[in-house]
Amino acid sequence: MSALPMHPRLVSLEGGEGAGKTTVLAALRAELEASGREVLVTREPGGTPLAEKIRGLLLHPGDEAVSAETELLLMFAARAQHVRATVLPALERGAWVLCDRFTDSSYAYQGGGRGLDQDFIAALERRVVGIRPGLTLLLDIDVAAGRARIQGRDRRPDRIESERDAFFERVRAAFLARAAAEPERFRVVDASRPVDDVVAVAVAALRDFTEAA
Amino acid sequence: MSALPMHPRLVSLEGGEGAGKTTVLAALRAELEASGREVLVTREPGGTPLAEKIRGLLLHPGDEAVSAETELLLMFAARAQHVRATVLPALERGAWVLCDRFTDSSYAYQGGGRGLDQDFIAALERRVVGIRPGLTLLLDIDVAAGRARIQGRDRRPDRIESERDAFFERVRAAFLARAAAEPERFRVVDASRPVDDVVAVAVAALRDFTEAA
Repeated sequence: MSALPMHPRLVSLEGGEGAGKTTVLAALRAELEASGREVLVTREPGGTPLAEKIRGLLLHPGDEAVSAETELLLMFAARAQHVRATVLPALERGAWVLCDRFTDSSYAYQGGGRGLDQDFIAALERRVVGIRPGLTLLLDIDVAAGRARIQGRDRRPDRIESERDAFFERVRAAFLARAAAEPERFRVVDASRPVDDVVAVAVAALRDFTEAA
Repeated sequence: MSALPMHPRLVSLEGGEGAGKTTVLAALRAELEASGREVLVTREPGGTPLAEKIRGLLLHPGDEAVSAETELLLMFAARAQHVRATVLPALERGAWVLCDRFTDSSYAYQGGGRGLDQDFIAALERRVVGIRPGLTLLLDIDVAAGRARIQGRDRRPDRIESERDAFFERVRAAFLARAAAEPERFRVVDASRPVDDVVAVAVAALRDFTEAA
């Protein structure tokens, strides 16, 4: 598999349910903005009006069972739009882009979780995404601990959050395998620690990355 | 390109705007039902509740410019769902399936029209569709003549119908190239003739096909 170009101002945040992505993302944004950088915070699936509508179909498709292949292609349809309409224009004008989930999530959820062929996912990435983040922070947490953290949320779980623990175990293993395979891009953060610690470790990793750039 | 299996009870109808697909489809259905066959008439993009929602995004995406890659992946997401939830179950119970557009439309519209790589489309077809119709009827009509026929419609054109003539010329050329490459599967019907003639030729082609089966 040929390596895709890594963009030095594209930073993605990955992790399972209850890992604390939202809190960490706000801290990463503040860290970048403190030094006067323009920052675009965005998310996947989503990040454009059309991609957000695709997100709606993915998470709340109605009563119909969604095939794994449909899920994968909807994810990449949203990503194709997001990259072209939002991510690349921001990078081209010199902004930093902080993305709540990016292509690694497809390898983890549709590859690891659903069991779809990693080579097919790689072909989609190559053909319709074409770039990788310069830095990917993986907030790693034990499935049971992550689930305990989201118990308190005052909304019903969406279609993917409603999967069984075995699914999330496969997602976690796929994330960790990707991190192990690309140590120059990934920083794995132990997200089982108190939130303040998780934020501090994530911000320090981002600072190392920006200073090295 | 390895050949995909052709299913002898899956029949697709293809063609540009104004070629008369709706009228022909009704006649094909009547022909099959006249001999007591169970017939499922369906369409792409669409054919399941979720796939119809994807169709809605494709044809009426709002003000956002839809990237060619997004369009292609939404088409195949809808198709993946349609094949698994509607087409294969009908074929497996012994029904005939008459499909208003199928994968050839992606080769013609997203490949020919939008200029996307045919090999990538073939990879998507192989991975997420896996079957081809036993018979594909291509209603071929000159672009200007087709456009003249749809002038009278009392609805606004959708996003794809709003393309320029040069786009539809490329679509037509791609359909004809596919028909030339697979003469055993395609029957090309001259759709510039009066509708009754077009229907008669299409029904005769279907009858030849069912009798040979």
